[in-house]
Order: sequence, then structure tokens, then C-alpha cells
Amino acid sequence: MTMLGFYTAGESHGKGLIGFLEGLPAGLEIDRRLIDRQLHRRQLGYGRGGRMAIESDRVEIISGVRHGRTLGSPVSFLIANKDWENWQVPMSCDPVSDGADLRNVTRPRPGHADLPGALKYQTHDMRDILERASARETAARVAGGAFARTLLEYFGVRIASHVLAIGGERVAIEYESLPFDDIAAAENGVDDVNETEEAYLRCADRDAAARMTNLIDEAGRTGDTLGGVVEIAAAGVPPGLGSHIQWDRRLDGRLARAMMSIPSVKAVEIGDGVAGARKPGSQAHDAIFYDAAARRFRHETNRAGGIEGGISNGEEARVRIYLKPIPTLRRPLASVDVCSKQVFDAAVERGDVCAVPAAGVVGEAMLALELCGAFLEKFGGDSIDETCENHGRFMKRVLEY
Amino acid sequence: MTMLGFYTAGESHGKGLIGFLEGLPAGLEIDRRLIDRQLHRRQLGYGRGGRMAIESDRVEIISGVRHGRTLGSPVSFLIANKDWENWQVPMSCDPVSDGADLRNVTRPRPGHADLPGALKYQTHDMRDILERASARETAARVAGGAFARTLLEYFGVRIASHVLAIGGERVAIEYESLPFDDIAAAENGVDDVNETEEAYLRCADRDAAARMTNLIDEAGRTGDTLGGVVEIAAAGVPPGLGSHIQWDRRLDGRLARAMMSIPSVKAVEIGDGVAGARKPGSQAHDAIFYDAAARRFRHETNRAGGIEGGISNGEEARVRIYLKPIPTLRRPLASVDVCSKQVFDAAVERGDVCAVPAAGVVGEAMLALELCGAFLEKFGGDSIDETCENHGRFMKRVLEY
Amino acid sequence: MTMLGFYTAGESHGKGLIGFLEGLPAGLEIDRRLIDRQLHRRQLGYGRGGRMAIESDRVEIISGVRHGRTLGSPVSFLIANKDWENWQVPMSCDPVSDGADLRNVTRPRPGHADLPGALKYQTHDMRDILERASARETAARVAGGAFARTLLEYFGVRIASHVLAIGGERVAIEYESLPFDDIAAAENGVDDVNETEEAYLRCADRDAAARMTNLIDEAGRTGDTLGGVVEIAAAGVPPGLGSHIQWDRRLDGRLARAMMSIPSVKAVEIGDGVAGARKPGSQAHDAIFYDAAARRFRHETNRAGGIEGGISNGEEARVRIYLKPIPTLRRPLASVDVCSKQVFDAAVERGDVCAVPAAGVVGEAMLALELCGAFLEKFGGDSIDETCENHGRFMKRVLEY
Amino acid sequence: MTMLGFYTAGESHGKGLIGFLEGLPAGLEIDRRLIDRQLHRRQLGYGRGGRMAIESDRVEIISGVRHGRTLGSPVSFLIANKDWENWQVPMSCDPVSDGADLRNVTRPRPGHADLPGALKYQTHDMRDILERASARETAARVAGGAFARTLLEYFGVRIASHVLAIGGERVAIEYESLPFDDIAAAENGVDDVNETEEAYLRCADRDAAARMTNLIDEAGRTGDTLGGVVEIAAAGVPPGLGSHIQWDRRLDGRLARAMMSIPSVKAVEIGDGVAGARKPGSQAHDAIFYDAAARRFRHETNRAGGIEGGISNGEEARVRIYLKPIPTLRRPLASVDVCSKQVFDAAVERGDVCAVPAAGVVGEAMLALELCGAFLEKFGGDSIDETCENHGRFMKRVLEY
Repeated sequence: MTMLGFYTAGESHGKGLIGFLEGLPAGLEIDRRLIDRQLHRRQLGYGRGGRMAIESDRVEIISGVRHGRTLGSPVSFLIANKDWENWQVPMSCDPVSDGADLRNVTRPRPGHADLPGALKYQTHDMRDILERASARETAARVAGGAFARTLLEYFGVRIASHVLAIGGERVAIEYESLPFDDIAAAENGVDDVNETEEAYLRCADRDAAARMTNLIDEAGRTGDTLGGVVEIAAAGVPPGLGSHIQWDRRLDGRLARAMMSIPSVKAVEIGDGVAGARKPGSQAHDAIFYDAAARRFRHETNRAGGIEGGISNGEEARVRIYLKPIPTLRRPLASVDVCSKQVFDAAVERGDVCAVPAAGVVGEAMLALELCGAFLEKFGGDSIDETCENHGRFMKRVLEY
Repeated sequence: MTMLGFYTAGESHGKGLIGFLEGLPAGLEIDRRLIDRQLHRRQLGYGRGGRMAIESDRVEIISGVRHGRTLGSPVSFLIANKDWENWQVPMSCDPVSDGADLRNVTRPRPGHADLPGALKYQTHDMRDILERASARETAARVAGGAFARTLLEYFGVRIASHVLAIGGERVAIEYESLPFDDIAAAENGVDDVNETEEAYLRCADRDAAARMTNLIDEAGRTGDTLGGVVEIAAAGVPPGLGSHIQWDRRLDGRLARAMMSIPSVKAVEIGDGVAGARKPGSQAHDAIFYDAAARRFRHETNRAGGIEGGISNGEEARVRIYLKPIPTLRRPLASVDVCSKQVFDAAVERGDVCAVPAAGVVGEAMLALELCGAFLEKFGGDSIDETCENHGRFMKRVLEY
Repeated sequence: MTMLGFYTAGESHGKGLIGFLEGLPAGLEIDRRLIDRQLHRRQLGYGRGGRMAIESDRVEIISGVRHGRTLGSPVSFLIANKDWENWQVPMSCDPVSDGADLRNVTRPRPGHADLPGALKYQTHDMRDILERASARETAARVAGGAFARTLLEYFGVRIASHVLAIGGERVAIEYESLPFDDIAAAENGVDDVNETEEAYLRCADRDAAARMTNLIDEAGRTGDTLGGVVEIAAAGVPPGLGSHIQWDRRLDGRLARAMMSIPSVKAVEIGDGVAGARKPGSQAHDAIFYDAAARRFRHETNRAGGIEGGISNGEEARVRIYLKPIPTLRRPLASVDVCSKQVFDAAVERGDVCAVPAAGVVGEAMLALELCGAFLEKFGGDSIDETCENHGRFMKRVLEY
Repeated sequence: MTMLGFYTAGESHGKGLIGFLEGLPAGLEIDRRLIDRQLHRRQLGYGRGGRMAIESDRVEIISGVRHGRTLGSPVSFLIANKDWENWQVPMSCDPVSDGADLRNVTRPRPGHADLPGALKYQTHDMRDILERASARETAARVAGGAFARTLLEYFGVRIASHVLAIGGERVAIEYESLPFDDIAAAENGVDDVNETEEAYLRCADRDAAARMTNLIDEAGRTGDTLGGVVEIAAAGVPPGLGSHIQWDRRLDGRLARAMMSIPSVKAVEIGDGVAGARKPGSQAHDAIFYDAAARRFRHETNRAGGIEGGISNGEEARVRIYLKPIPTLRRPLASVDVCSKQVFDAAVERGDVCAVPAAGVVGEAMLALELCGAFLEKFGGDSIDETCENHGRFMKRVLEY
């Protein structure tokens, strides 16, 4: 059961990316600038290479929105590839003449889909694989997530992320459990000071950020790359999203799938998941209190990351993603040409040093999509007014519980 | 798209658990003893309380198997609750007379589905929630996983797990990347020496195991509980399972969902996911080599945990799960009665100190179910002979690639 | 997107049938006698052979219901095979000894799944196929449908069916567009007069019923079988179920799939579908009026069968199913033994002459399941009170529109 | 379980229609001209109004195809709205200035989604509904079906359709069971004689076609509209597609859903479904023979329409769809303005008299999509070569059975 269907299509150097989003109620106000703002955030980030400059993504809504409001019909959109003119032959949909520049790839890059994809789909030109496996695809996720975020914000749910670690550099301990507003402010603070891409690391700990910047510079010099850790948080999440009744309906499982599906993510943590495994039970859970004035149950800690038993508990949702370093290095790893079977340096497609800050924006999008889906499954509604009434009555019930 | 549908039903103290598994090809040999063997493994484990003794689970196959072979029709099975006679009134399907012993629960336990479930489903008797949210449900997963494992073993895929950490005690560094055969042997070794539950920790590092045992004893004395870390591995996985082409088809995302859906799991890691986020790119990936004699690509390291770009790469699949300590403590955490809104000690349902070894068995089952699903999506086949031919031809293609 | 998941498992002569139903809100009152009543209705019907006497089906609820109310967790149930003791060897789950009575079937019956199933699943014993393909499976659908019907009746939706034709005998023209209450009464009328199976044809036109009875008797004498046409109707359906926004969300398409999936159904008609294809547009649609007093839009005709554009329009849902005659004849059709490839008389499994009245009960169940699913997708709600509020507010909106 | 995911997006007068198709194996040769040919066929047909001239649809493939072959990644395509320049304001995605021409619709047309859609989605401008509910959307289905057809034709499966009835005019009895080649030739024959739209009725019975043409002319004069009946057939279907093991996996049910989801279709028939309900069992099924030379089972009749027990039996698939007359009449039906609640003539959106021939093309597309999906579920394969080997081995098994 998934109330909100979300799919993407498109190759990295093809005509563009298509997003398809079905299940939003009718009447939701859509501001295209907010979607483009998210696309812009994804393109920023200290450590990105030259390609970002080409992109400057803009969403073109094809369907599902009329006069600034959703229709209830499927939303589809296109993010055009601004560099398409240079790729019309190698990425032509139609057959091309013999001798054309195919930019075919026969040298698989370790850490990418190149080789397993080529074996699975039985191709010797790994461009057939890497064009779709490219992280470029996440632009469509960010745009789709911006629609989901618009719905969530209508209901007071806010989403933000911040960088916890780049390579071996990590924030100070007090930034590990940063209040939501400080997470959200971290980005704005950076923005205020300096809108340049270089300054944009999205780390709230300024001292750590300086060390991270140095680390990135150093990696850039040596032709190496860096991964890291990002925390994504949602405030204002109502209790009751997800369910314990079947393994595939649990909100934690759904978030884990969504996050792990982001390229380069190799671990996902809800709340204090990793550290919590080392603690005794007496220190690993969140005691329950009742605030009689506010008529709500509350917790003074949030070790659970807002999810207990696969269900949101009304506290902030907190998810952390662990990203491996970008696999495409200027100093390539050992690999083998799939045609000649000879050892070769792996082909280099792009030159980013670190994509961790951008991954936070993608993580926000995936969190928005999953929360929006769970929200619509909980509250239903074919028009935003209907969803709003259903939501309002449930929240009243929670108060009267 | 999911080729293999798997669902469970049943309350912890109800008549029993039902498992439903659709999509296995016809003609697969099923040995009920192997399923019961898995159920037995789940019930063992140092640190379990008294309830395990009651259970001694046995699978009763209701459908889908005839004369020891699958029919291709849905497999369904029942794991009866041996303690049902004591629960017939409180868990009666039919209405009961006034004044009957309902064993209702109004005191939510922190860390459980109790409170968020009660708010979501609007009940003041949290037995309505905890009966389904109980980890008892994982018995049905283990039985379902045993069917999936039977198919995988037919194709040479083997699955095993071992404990990496209990609370703050962790195995020595050389056990972090244990060869698969040593993982599988760890359990057998323990079995040979001593079949008692107490000895059964399923940790390959004997020194660490001794420290873990002490830690569990100590926690038992103080009324505390413990979590930990388990690694689950699959050997013999063919390349090409899962796909990069859509976010929800990636094998890593699917495994993350399956693992995170296990009660108490709060983090999931593929390969070196957590540690890999700290390393530079030059040390975080797996170089590609070609073994001309064996006519196969291979890697000398397996930092990726057998999955690149969302696709299995032919190496062992390696997943780690981080479990929080059992939330039900003998010294209960602060909580509030949902009727009176008064502070109360949380109700205690059961007395395990540590469920980490058992979680490994559940993790194996979930890995088996997801790998089996991805396997059948890759190879198809309505009869085991057809699946076998399809698989054989593809493996031949991989050799001839 | 399917809010209500419904699956069955079980072989005709196995231990029993399992039903699995996920998605009902918590707190819905369940009366087991109403489920058994539906199972009883399915077993009645003029023209049934001897097997019905054996069955006398009873539902045993395994999970999802406590103290007469749903829990929100998956409902599962068992309908035991009362004849199981006679089938323990031929349908044993475990291997049986050599020489055991396997009751294997090598002669495919035309019109059944026997041969295509045997080719697909590669078996030479067609019992492996026919046990699951048997119409016996519809007992589980009827039980599942009874749960769905319970929810619908809570919201004032009622479902009934009546026989329009048996073989060449058809009701008089005025019974083609019978008011809902007369459809519902048709069955009661028969019940009042005579509770015996023989009298139970569920046809409102007493004259036609007499001719149908004669026709069935005649077919019984000659060893032939009969099909027919049944209309299934639902009154009190709210407007707005289903959707035009995607091909697979249309209510008409979903009903067509559910109905065509009933064994022996070979055509499905919504409203005046077959006859309507012959009429000019000026006579084939339902003019729209507004009843100011009742503040609702209404139609004076219902040629659309209550569905326009894939969405329920507030009028009665009307679906007709066309059943081929039972393929198993006492005078078998020509067929070929799959082992010897020699012409043989087809094996005879059972001896019903006509299953049309029972098919109406199955059709009601499938209509209930689909309407209930579409209802829950429209109104959501995890508890029946929440669903009720959501529904009530929407119906108020429709009045205020 | 659906191996082939197919969705469309787009409003009738918006920028265009988007099609999304996931699950085709890699390496399938795609000829865009064949897709455009199908789009052209859909636009032809005696009885179409002026809008067809505007359209002259062309597919623009956005993703999933490179150098004339599928990549295995999602295929997405755009069918641009050639009339978009005239609709940029009323269908603008962004808000428009006050006083702009919104072409809003407040008068619902009987027989359309207008009113139930407006109630469901709570809008008083029914353009929000009718733009998506328009049969224009079927252009995207036809393009998507052309991809599916390409795969099927690779495996020798051919699809064609012919008109059986327009209004009260029906073909002679011998055309009711026309051999597949004559069905396919019917269209070619017409094409040869006269490529004009007027001659294009796609009815094999020339005498009936003449009467149908007259009937359409007459209806055009009186401002009326016509429905009819179309048969869609597939030759070369392998046995074993679909399954009896679960209600929602049956091929007949899936075809029924796909066909009933076509706008204006109100009944679906497999084989002799409607007439077969009147026949005795001895005349309603297909006896089974064995052709020793060809080593295959065969039937001399095809009353089952190629499907028994929900599984294809190796004979031609035959499905009939019953279309109601187009609901939009030049002489509109009585209706009520949703704002004023006053009786009004219904708004007229377009002027076709009869869309039955075009519906055949849409029916072919839906048959192709469902058969292709069932084919891929049966045979699997991530590359066309792998699918081909899997298919070939199974067909060999059928011969050796």
C-alpha cells in the first residue's frame, strides 16, 4: 500500500529527467520558485566539481497543476539537461550513423553500478548503465520532494538537515543533538554571510566546518574524495504515521529504504541507532510524560528519533545517513576493461571531491516523500480541504485522548 | 514490483501466527524439519527470559506444499501459540462477559509501539497494540524466511550471521571482516560444545563472547537490558540482483527496509557503511580484477558489502543491524497511565535481558526473503526446473561476458 | 495503491482455506455469525451436487479481532476442510510412502486450468493445479467479503444480487431493472417459503424461476451443465469512490477485474453495458437533476450502473456477470491424457449442474471487497470512529457543495 | 506483482501527455515510426470530429532508449499538445491574472466524470476534472502500448482488432469468429482502397460497414452519437501467461480491468462470454486434442478466448469491449449548473459522433500492455537476449511435455 506514487525517469546526459508523482490531493498551492529553490540547494555545496555550473536546474511542470494549484491528477515535470546539445549524438534515442562519437565506456569504475549493471543488463558499453545510475537522477527526487514538502509545510511539518561529519572530521558533541531550529538556521546563517558555493557546507559547527573545508581542499589536491554523515530532521510530525501491523508498513523501514536508495548512502540510522546499541536499556529509551496544560504526551529525550514501534510518536523525526566517498577519483582505482579484460585505470566521468552537503538536500527530499506518503495514508482526502479536516479532527482526538 | 509476497498475521497471545508467502516456483523440495530448525534457532540465545521455554515453536503448513514439494500456489502456515489455553478469555475473538479478565494495559512502555499505536488506533487498552507489535511476530518471519532460504540454498546461496557486539563489548578487529565459512562455523562450534541455551551467543570471538556473557549476567542482576550489533552475510549471491533503474528497486534500499522493520533495529549498514563514511575514496572502494582462469571479475576487498549501484556484484552480501536494548526493563522507565494521566511505572510484559543473538536469526530470515524476491525477479520461472535453467543460462552468460 | 489487501491460500482438499485481509480500521464490530451466514448462502443454490453437504463451512478467526472488534492488525481466518481426513494422504504436505493413493490426475478437463496450469507449472499430475484452481477457493472470498460488507453496512451501504438468466431462460423485462429492495427481498422471499437448497435459486421472477428449475432438472438428467447471468447491486454508495486520474484507479476497471477473477465468469457488464452499446447517445446516459429539498444531485435513470468516469456517482452500483456452464460434465468433453497423449474422457471431479446462484454470493463478496477498498482509500481512518468522522464530513461537504 | 509498470500523466489541453513505462528488458529495438503509426491509427476513424485534425500526434522519447534500443531504464515520452498555444492561459500551471479567460466549466455533462469528479475533488470548475478524464489520455496509452507491442512482436505475438457493431448495426454471423489474419487484413484492406479518414471504419464485413457508415451519417445529422462493439485479438500467445493461484493474478481479470478502464467501455467479454452464458456445458467449452506431429495440445474451437483458469492456453486471446455512445452530444442531455443549481444544457466540449474504431486501437494497446506484463512475469530477463533464451527454453519444454 502506497498512497503516494513517485517515480523518476531519465538519463544523466539525455534530454532531461522526468518526475512522476501521483496521489497529492487537489487544491494544494504550488509555488514553482520553491521547487527551483530546492533544486538550487542541491547544486550548491563545497567540494562540487565543474558540472554543477552547467546545470542550474529549473523544473518545468507538465501536468497536474493548474493556476498554481494541484488538480489531484498525476503531477509530472521535466528538468531539462542544459548540456543536451553536446550529447545529442552519444545519447540519441534514434540509431546513429556508423563512426559517430558514441562516448562508449568499457572501463567500469569501482563503487559504481557500472560492472554489476553491465553484467545484469548484458551490455559492453557501460554508458548504458551509468547514465541512469548517475546521482544526476537525484535532481528529480529533489523536485518531487519539493511537492511533498509543500504539502507537509501546509500542515506545519518542517524539514531540514545538517552535516555531522566529512571524512574523519566531525562536529563537536553538542551538535549531535541540535535543536531543529538550529539545524534549519545553520543553512541560513551560511547563506547570509556568503552565497558562494564554496562557503556552503551546511554544517552548524563553524569550527568543524573550517576543518572540513580544509579536508576537502586537501583531498582535492591529492585527487581523493570524501564521504560523511548527514542528519535529516522533521519537526511538527503528527503521531500515528506508519504502522506496526505489517513489516512493510513500518515508518522506520520505509525511511530506511528511501534513504539507502540515495546513491553513496551505505548506512541509515534512526535517532541514536548506532550509539544506542552500546547503551544499557535504562539509558536508551525516552521516558513518557504528560503535559496537562498542553494535553499531550511528551518525551524529554528523543533517542528514538521520533519513531517507536514503526509509528511516529509526535517528536521530531531524526534520520542519519552515512555516505561513502564519491567513487570517481581523479586518481582512479584499479579496474579492468570489460572488452579486453586488461587492467586499466578506471574511466573518470566527473570531478566532485565531496557531495555530502548536497546529499542532505536529497535526504530531505526522500524524507519529505515518505512522510507525505504516510501522512496521506493516515489522513486521506482528495482535496486539501478534506485532508485538512481529517487531520484536524484526528489532532483534536489526540488532545482529547 | 515484488515477485515474492510475504505477509504475517497474528497476535502474540492469540491462537497463533499465520504466514503467507506467494511467488515460490512449483517443485521446490520443502523439509519441514529445516523450518522448525530455524524456529528453534530463534528461540535460543543467551539472555532470554522464561517465555521461550513455553514456545517451542513448530510450523504447521496449511497450503502450497504437497508431498514435500511446493505447488506454486500460496504457501500458508500456522505457528500455534502453545500458551493459548491461558489466554482464551483476554484474547477471545468473540465478545466476553462483563467482569472477565481482560488483562488490559493502560500503562505504555517507553520504546514500544504502545503509546503511538494507541493514539493512532484510538484505543485505551494498549493490549490491542502490543499484541501485534510484539517481537513474537518475528517467529512467522523466520518460518517464511526458511522457505526462501530453501530456494536460495538450491542455487548455492548460503546465509549466516554472527554477533559483533553486545552493549559496549565488541569483537576484536579481526572478527569484523570474518570469512563467511567462519561466520557459519561460529554457530556450529558453539553447538558442538554445548547445546544449552546459555552457551548460545553466536559470537565467533570466544574472548569477546565471555565478556558479553558477563555483561548480560550483570545486566540481569541490575534489571537492565542490552542491545548490540549483528552482521548477516550471504555467500554465493549471483551478480545482477536488484536494479539501479528506480529508487525502489535498489537491493540496498530493499534490504534496509527489511532489516529496519525488525523490532529494536535502529540502524542498518551495508558493508563498511559506518566506518566507510570516514575514509578517503582511495581506501573505501573495491578495486576490480579479472580472474582469467575462472573467467570472472572479482574484488579483493568487499567494502561495498556485495552491492554496488543497488545491484549485487557477485561478492558476499554483508549487512549489519544495530539493535537498541530491549525496552521492557525489570526496572521500568518513567511513564504515564493513559487513562488517569498519572505517572506510573511502565507495565512489564516479559523479562529478556538481551535478544541480540535471536535478532541475527530474524535478520537472516529477512535477508533470505529479500534475496529470494530479487532472485525470482531476476530469473523468473514458475517451476524450479524453469528457474534453474534461466539461472544457469544467465550464469553462463556472465562467464562468457 | 490498494488500501485493503486481500489474499487467499489453500487447496480444495487440503487442510483448509486461509484468508488474509489487511487494512480494516480498528474498532469495527465483527459478528462471526454474519460471516458464517454468508458462507451458508454460498453453499445453497438449486443445482449443486453432493459435495456441498460435506462442507457446511465455518470461519475460524485466527487474528485481527479481539472481543468482537477489529484491532487494525491483519485479519486472518481458516475455513477448515471437513473432509480432510479422507484426503490426508493424497494432499499430505509431507512426502508419502511409495504406493500411496495419490489420486493423481493426468486427464485435463476442458474449460479448467488443468492443462494450461500443468504446462505453466510443469507438472504431469494436474491435481497440483486443480486443487488451487477449484471454485472451492471462493469460500474464502465470501468470508473475506463478509468482513468488508460489515464495514460497508456500518456506513449504510447494502449489497444484494439476483439471477437474471440460467442457460437460455431469462427473467421478464421488468426484472432487468429491479429496484434494490426487490433484489434484496428476492432471496428473503425464497427463504421464507422454503429453506431447502432446492428452492434456493435467488431469482425474483417466480415464473422464470420455475422455468429455470425445470431447465436445471433437464440438464441434470442429460448430464449437462448450465451457466447464466447474475446482477449484483450496491445501494447507499457514496459519490467519489474510485478515480479517473489513472487507468488502474478507476472503480469500473477494478470491479471488472474482481468480477472476472471469479471462476467461470467470462463477461462483466457495468449498468446497461451490453445493451447500451446498441443505443444512440440520446438514450444511453443519465440526465442530471438537482433535488433542492434533499440538496443533492440525482439521476432518474441509472444506465451508468452508478459509475461515471471511473468514479461512483452516488447512485446504486450495478454489475452483471456472465457465467459459462460448469466445465465438469457427467458426459465429459473430449480430452487427451497428458502422459500417454491418448484421447480419453476427461476426469470428473464433481457433479454440480449449475453454480449460478452461488456465483451471485461470490460476486457480492467481490463487490464488497472492492467497494470497501475504494471506500477506505477515499475516507482513510485507522479507527472506525475516525473513518466515520471523515466520511461524515465529506458527505456534509457534498450536501453543501 | 506487476513486472511492467505503466502510468500516464497530462491534461487534454495542457502542454502534453507524459507516458511512463518501467520494466522492459534492455536491448529491445525501438522504431519510433511504429509508435507514431499507432498514434496515427488512433486518430483515424469514421465519425471523428474536427479536433483530430489539430492533433497529428508524435511521440518524443525522453528516456530509456539509446541508439534505437531500450536501456532497461524507465521509458518516458511526451506527446505534445499541438494546440497548446491556444490554451496557455486557461491551462497555465502558474497563477493567472484576474479576468483572464479561464474557460471554466460549471455545467456537468451526463455520462462523464464531470460531476462525480467535482464532488470528489471538491471543485466548482469542472475543467479541473474533464481535462484529465478526457479520452485524449488514451493517446499516451497507445504510445505505451506500442512499446509493449514491439516486445510481443519480437516473440511472434501479433495484435489486431475489428469492429463488430456500431449502434444497432452488427456484422454477419460469420464475422463473429473471424480468423486472426482476416482481422488483421480488415484494416489493411481498407487502407489499400482509401487512406482517408472517412473510409476508415476497421470493419471486416463490407456490407455491415456500409450500413454503419450510413448510421453514423444519420446520427451526425440528428446531433446524436453512437457506441458499438470491438473485438481485439492476439495471435501467437504462449501458454502459461497469468495464473490461477491468486484472484489478482488471473489474466482474464487483468485484461478486464485494463479494458474496462478505457473511457466509454461498459462491458468486457472474453471469448464467447455473453453468448456462452446461454449455452449448455456440452457446447460451451473447447475439447482438447493432441497434434502428435506438431507435438502440441490444441483446440478446434476457441470459445474460451484463449484463457482457461486465468491462464493463457496457447490459443488466440479474444476480448470484446462494449462501448457506450459518446456522452457529449450536439443535442445535450438535461443537466444542472453546479453553481446556480439551475437546469442548463450541458456544455459541449467536442463533436465526435462515434469513437468505436479508435477504441479498437486503444484496446489493442491495453491488450499489448497486459500481455507484455504477463509475458515478462512469466519469462523474466533483464536483456532481450535473456528473455529470449528463457522463453525459448520454456517453449521447448512445452513441446517436450
